[in-house]
Amino acid sequence: MRMDFLTLFPEMFHGVLNTSILKQAQDKKAVEYQVTDFRSYSENKHQKVDDYPYGGGAGMVLTPQPLFDAVEDASAASHAKPRVILLCPQGRRFTQETAEELAEEKHLIFICGHYEGYDERIREQLVTDEISIGDFVLTGGELGSMVIADSVTRLLPEVLGNKDSAVTDSFSTGYLEHPHYTRPADFRGMKVPDVLLSGHHKRIEEWRRKEALKRTYERRPDLLDIERLHAEEKKWLDEIKNSRDS
Amino acid sequence: MRMDFLTLFPEMFHGVLNTSILKQAQDKKAVEYQVTDFRSYSENKHQKVDDYPYGGGAGMVLTPQPLFDAVEDASAASHAKPRVILLCPQGRRFTQETAEELAEEKHLIFICGHYEGYDERIREQLVTDEISIGDFVLTGGELGSMVIADSVTRLLPEVLGNKDSAVTDSFSTGYLEHPHYTRPADFRGMKVPDVLLSGHHKRIEEWRRKEALKRTYERRPDLLDIERLHAEEKKWLDEIKNSRDS
Repeated sequence: MRMDFLTLFPEMFHGVLNTSILKQAQDKKAVEYQVTDFRSYSENKHQKVDDYPYGGGAGMVLTPQPLFDAVEDASAASHAKPRVILLCPQGRRFTQETAEELAEEKHLIFICGHYEGYDERIREQLVTDEISIGDFVLTGGELGSMVIADSVTRLLPEVLGNKDSAVTDSFSTGYLEHPHYTRPADFRGMKVPDVLLSGHHKRIEEWRRKEALKRTYERRPDLLDIERLHAEEKKWLDEIKNSRDS
Repeated sequence: MRMDFLTLFPEMFHGVLNTSILKQAQDKKAVEYQVTDFRSYSENKHQKVDDYPYGGGAGMVLTPQPLFDAVEDASAASHAKPRVILLCPQGRRFTQETAEELAEEKHLIFICGHYEGYDERIREQLVTDEISIGDFVLTGGELGSMVIADSVTRLLPEVLGNKDSAVTDSFSTGYLEHPHYTRPADFRGMKVPDVLLSGHHKRIEEWRRKEALKRTYERRPDLLDIERLHAEEKKWLDEIKNSRDS
């Protein structure tokens, strides 16, 4: 897969894209990242990329020309029709489902504005997807595009080895993770639950499933699909509810 | 405000923390960022920071000692009691409201794990807040902590000048932004709406309010507080609903 990042702040990306899994994904040729300063596409003699809004008002607006040209140039670099993603608060909410959907594509182009608004023609004619990573205000689209790039890259074939992919994914299983403990068994008087030291695999497995159910019920009941719980899990859930009421 | 980032990948942070608004915030002494590799706190002779999970299973678990020591050291650097924030999918959802709450603090410490699990004693005894930026899986807590740092830093006094703060904040106003347009009036045959070129301020203002209402109704009806709409806005909303039905 190819991912293009169109930004006015290319220096923001290097550390994130060249560390850990994202670096390994590039080394394995599973993904190719290209960060482009779209100011270099400006036909304005001062390389301006924004201008005052028609109709007046505060703030500047990104002009269409540099972004249209940058997207067209990036598009030409692949044979696939790219998804052109604008990061903005008005977009649809990014979830693991969106990540899985985008991981099927061959080419993603991210447009990262930076506190300015976008000329509406960019949204209407250039962009295929407006995406928001959440209900909070960020300085620009750069961090959001890195978040999406990370979550999508992880899903590409051969990127994660067994070790990493074994980490439980709450949004696929429908449960939050059970608690983990490692050495030492006693750290400053804080002890590991006896059951985990018992060597009794069946009891450990049951403890973990109960704890995962309990944590999910307490923190994210919206993830629980009550209809699909096994009889045993339904019984545990009743116990959890009762112990909270008492 | 001071923010500490405890991570095994300190090189991920430099580009983001030293660009644009976050750099300016540091220059203005509104915020001080400190990125620390918590591996340097490990008392293990091989500087190990993780170990196998008690009870068996795949994946590694971060041991308590390096993180307890790193947090205690970071805490000693300020007179304020810090909020110790763990980025994880089980945490409460980060929103603009959380950003505003955290912006009142003097010291934030972010614990950024990286695909391993955390020993439960870290969650129970060291961490004050477990936060998730959304329902998607990331390689580590680093990007999430940068997202929070960005949104919180923007809210600190004197960080944003008038130019930037003038940007409409959807999550405070309850509306998504109206469309913006800038020069040229005709770009490749795509034209700016006539009203914005009319110079008629009252009509422009009304067009913008209607468009903001329409966009919010279409994309994020959950943000609209129908009870608080003015009579005029209620009329517009009826028009918008009717035009969609027909």
